[in-house]
Amino acid sequence: MKLPEFTIQLPEWVAEYVDQSPPIFPEIEDRMDFAIDLSRKNIEHQTGGPFGAVIFDAAGHLIAPGVNMVIPANCSILHAEMVAIALAQKVLNRFDISDGGRLNFDLFATTEPCAMCFGAIPWSGVRRLVCGARKEDAQAIGFDEGPKPENWTTALSDRGIAVIRDVCREKAAAILNDYVNSGGLIYNPDLKSINS
Amino acid sequence: MKLPEFTIQLPEWVAEYVDQSPPIFPEIEDRMDFAIDLSRKNIEHQTGGPFGAVIFDAAGHLIAPGVNMVIPANCSILHAEMVAIALAQKVLNRFDISDGGRLNFDLFATTEPCAMCFGAIPWSGVRRLVCGARKEDAQAIGFDEGPKPENWTTALSDRGIAVIRDVCREKAAAILNDYVNSGGLIYNPDLKSINS
Repeated sequence: MKLPEFTIQLPEWVAEYVDQSPPIFPEIEDRMDFAIDLSRKNIEHQTGGPFGAVIFDAAGHLIAPGVNMVIPANCSILHAEMVAIALAQKVLNRFDISDGGRLNFDLFATTEPCAMCFGAIPWSGVRRLVCGARKEDAQAIGFDEGPKPENWTTALSDRGIAVIRDVCREKAAAILNDYVNSGGLIYNPDLKSINS
Repeated sequence: MKLPEFTIQLPEWVAEYVDQSPPIFPEIEDRMDFAIDLSRKNIEHQTGGPFGAVIFDAAGHLIAPGVNMVIPANCSILHAEMVAIALAQKVLNRFDISDGGRLNFDLFATTEPCAMCFGAIPWSGVRRLVCGARKEDAQAIGFDEGPKPENWTTALSDRGIAVIRDVCREKAAAILNDYVNSGGLIYNPDLKSINS
């Protein structure tokens, strides 16, 4: 048997967009804006769902971007957060982004994470999760975040991972509406699938 | 910026092992035995943690194997279940393994899934989850399954995904003990990390 293998590869337009970005993103809103731009461009380029995520270091340097690539890559685990986490770990060359708790890195997500991405966060080594749109914004247009615990923010903070919500929420939520209005697919409807 | 990319690639020994396997695995225990063998060999070859997972079709044909590769691949999302899901979707060329609910595929996991893998299952399109060792078996040796909802089996069955537990449980749990006794790393201890 030739073993299958699978490569996580960002759409080509991401490189150009990253090259145009500033060397540092000083404010938390600047960082979320960048993630939201990724989600918008992902719709425009038709390279996946309306979700972006980014790993930044504490000073605001971009470590790794992520966009939802479920449909074009035919892979249900490629939510934006999972892509950003995997690529940040590749860039940093370690499976624990915090390097044993010594370093602070943030995960920015344009919509609050689904059950899978939520569960991935404690293993990733990110120390802070910053969210744009809320679950309710995604649900309003038919997306589903999956079976996430009700107390998910507490579950993360109990593990030393801070959660900041509603950063540029309206702008992030508007992208979700743009996606639906542009005819974007809410996929796997029989399984009530998807988020981020 | 040259964009990072990341390839999910099984250890080389897996190909040889799969080549030696029968064309079909008739019984549910045969399928779990195969997954348990993967977890044991993953320890012997020092290619990751003591967890295996496999996607089988309803008749018992092997679609894609998975092993935990977090440490050697430096990627926290590479739990055995995630690897099996991503590679099965690659083999089948679709992000919904069930193809819109038409086809039944099972995910076998040598230990009950962690919070991340649990959350990934509804998006994958597998219609049945079959587990070996229990959470308690993994916790007994220091592993942590993360912030998974208490009612996780119900949460899956509510979404049309059957859960079968305790298949070859003792044999699967014995592998976890072998791993610790052989000096295997329980990683990310500061974040109470890992499972499967």
